[in-house]
Amino acid sequence: MFSENTQLAGAVKTLPVARLRDGHLTELDDTLVVEEPLEIRLGTERFTVTMRTPGDDFALTRGLLLTEGVISSEADIGQIRYCDTGEAADTDIPNVVTVQLKTPPLSEKLWQRTLMAGTSCGLCGKAVLEAVGMQTCPLPPPALPVLSRETLLSLPHTLRRHQTLFRQTGGLHAVGLFDGAGNCRCVFEDIGRHNATDKAIGYGVEQGWLPWKGEAPLVLLVSGRASFEITQKALMARIPVVCSVSAASTLAVELAQTNNQTLVGFLREAGMTIYAGGERLSLAPDA
Amino acid sequence: MFSENTQLAGAVKTLPVARLRDGHLTELDDTLVVEEPLEIRLGTERFTVTMRTPGDDFALTRGLLLTEGVISSEADIGQIRYCDTGEAADTDIPNVVTVQLKTPPLSEKLWQRTLMAGTSCGLCGKAVLEAVGMQTCPLPPPALPVLSRETLLSLPHTLRRHQTLFRQTGGLHAVGLFDGAGNCRCVFEDIGRHNATDKAIGYGVEQGWLPWKGEAPLVLLVSGRASFEITQKALMARIPVVCSVSAASTLAVELAQTNNQTLVGFLREAGMTIYAGGERLSLAPDA
Repeated sequence: MFSENTQLAGAVKTLPVARLRDGHLTELDDTLVVEEPLEIRLGTERFTVTMRTPGDDFALTRGLLLTEGVISSEADIGQIRYCDTGEAADTDIPNVVTVQLKTPPLSEKLWQRTLMAGTSCGLCGKAVLEAVGMQTCPLPPPALPVLSRETLLSLPHTLRRHQTLFRQTGGLHAVGLFDGAGNCRCVFEDIGRHNATDKAIGYGVEQGWLPWKGEAPLVLLVSGRASFEITQKALMARIPVVCSVSAASTLAVELAQTNNQTLVGFLREAGMTIYAGGERLSLAPDA
Repeated sequence: MFSENTQLAGAVKTLPVARLRDGHLTELDDTLVVEEPLEIRLGTERFTVTMRTPGDDFALTRGLLLTEGVISSEADIGQIRYCDTGEAADTDIPNVVTVQLKTPPLSEKLWQRTLMAGTSCGLCGKAVLEAVGMQTCPLPPPALPVLSRETLLSLPHTLRRHQTLFRQTGGLHAVGLFDGAGNCRCVFEDIGRHNATDKAIGYGVEQGWLPWKGEAPLVLLVSGRASFEITQKALMARIPVVCSVSAASTLAVELAQTNNQTLVGFLREAGMTIYAGGERLSLAPDA
């Protein structure tokens, strides 16, 4: 079941650099995170371009199409492949993915453009939340606590253990998905936090378990901050619990509260901050 | 000359949270970074929507218009103001900025959309660099070393000292601009690194010293990673030196090398990594 960064080739590159450390200047080969554009096409139409770290491009594509509201599940995808014509001759990295849908796209625009088209005049956090509400409905209200304190506190360590590319480069975000016992289903890394989120979600879409339908908990943990974008993507995948190692923004909290999502920030070995949906958490120490 | 986050009101908000720390669960009011949409209009046309931390919205707008290639300097801007009609009634934060240009926009599309429109088939890092090259030319090649090692090593501390909102929330990126002696011209914070970059650049645009024209050095320092987007924005503002506290991506390095820009990463008290344009740096210890 577990997957992490299945295509490592092309994700990092060695470049000559100069390094000053403790007063000494040396020249050496350094490992950098690769950033390249990925173009996603729906049939013959360009849908979007994202700057991403190469690898798991089909997962990124699946995730983006789900979180942008273009597809509702894997069943909507007919074929997904790299474009085999017109690739730039000087690169080994394929940068164009073409998707054939089985059904007409639910939305033909990126979420932000939908937001811009939908608000006639005036724009605020409430308008953003309403635009999200037009794409999906709230999660079922949490019933019983399903996630223990020990499980939650164990997640950052597990995530870190799987951050293979970060250890090499210091330059990537990571997103992991975990079950209610803290078992890691997948970890994906990317220079863009939104891409890492889409890759993790897209992996679950391909496997058929996202969008999430069960009563059981599923946790998305992001290595950085929880901004609105992360909680919105998790909501589109119906993921009930979002955790971040760092801070959350006001709009992320409002989106979580409005949609019965659990949002936890500053999740570290020593503790956490609970912003929304604390009913899902059992925070007393295990007996 | 110095400016930091001139409009603090609205940038942070207090919310009730629960906190688990060292085994104890407490309820308290916590300070969060605000995230709200900002819509930017050119005349009556919507140009873009960005999720940003409120404050310095006119600087953000100026910076975005310059880095997206819509304007070439402050002289192109006729009027810039908040839209005074149709604001959502339930928010005190104005979220729509209207710009009247004196001249037709140089580009009517966001940079990414220009890239998508410009590449006929196939997309790679080289195509991205070529698209940037259509918007601006390389910087003059560096002549003499103009930045000392001591100056560079002092910048992260200076930036941190001005990260007022980060200290309150732990949730913002910061971007500072510094002269060749390490004097800080401005620091801006935002939940989005690209927004913080645009705010700092927009401040310089309003003041009339960006785009940078002199032979003297000007340094942009970003609190996080240096991705392609940051070096591209700095190049549009003709800023010769970009530093980041964390890693740089391959495409950021390639853009810097192609355009005679100096790029430094992992800039911390103990050292730095030089990726491009080291000729501008004097890395021997001061006598």
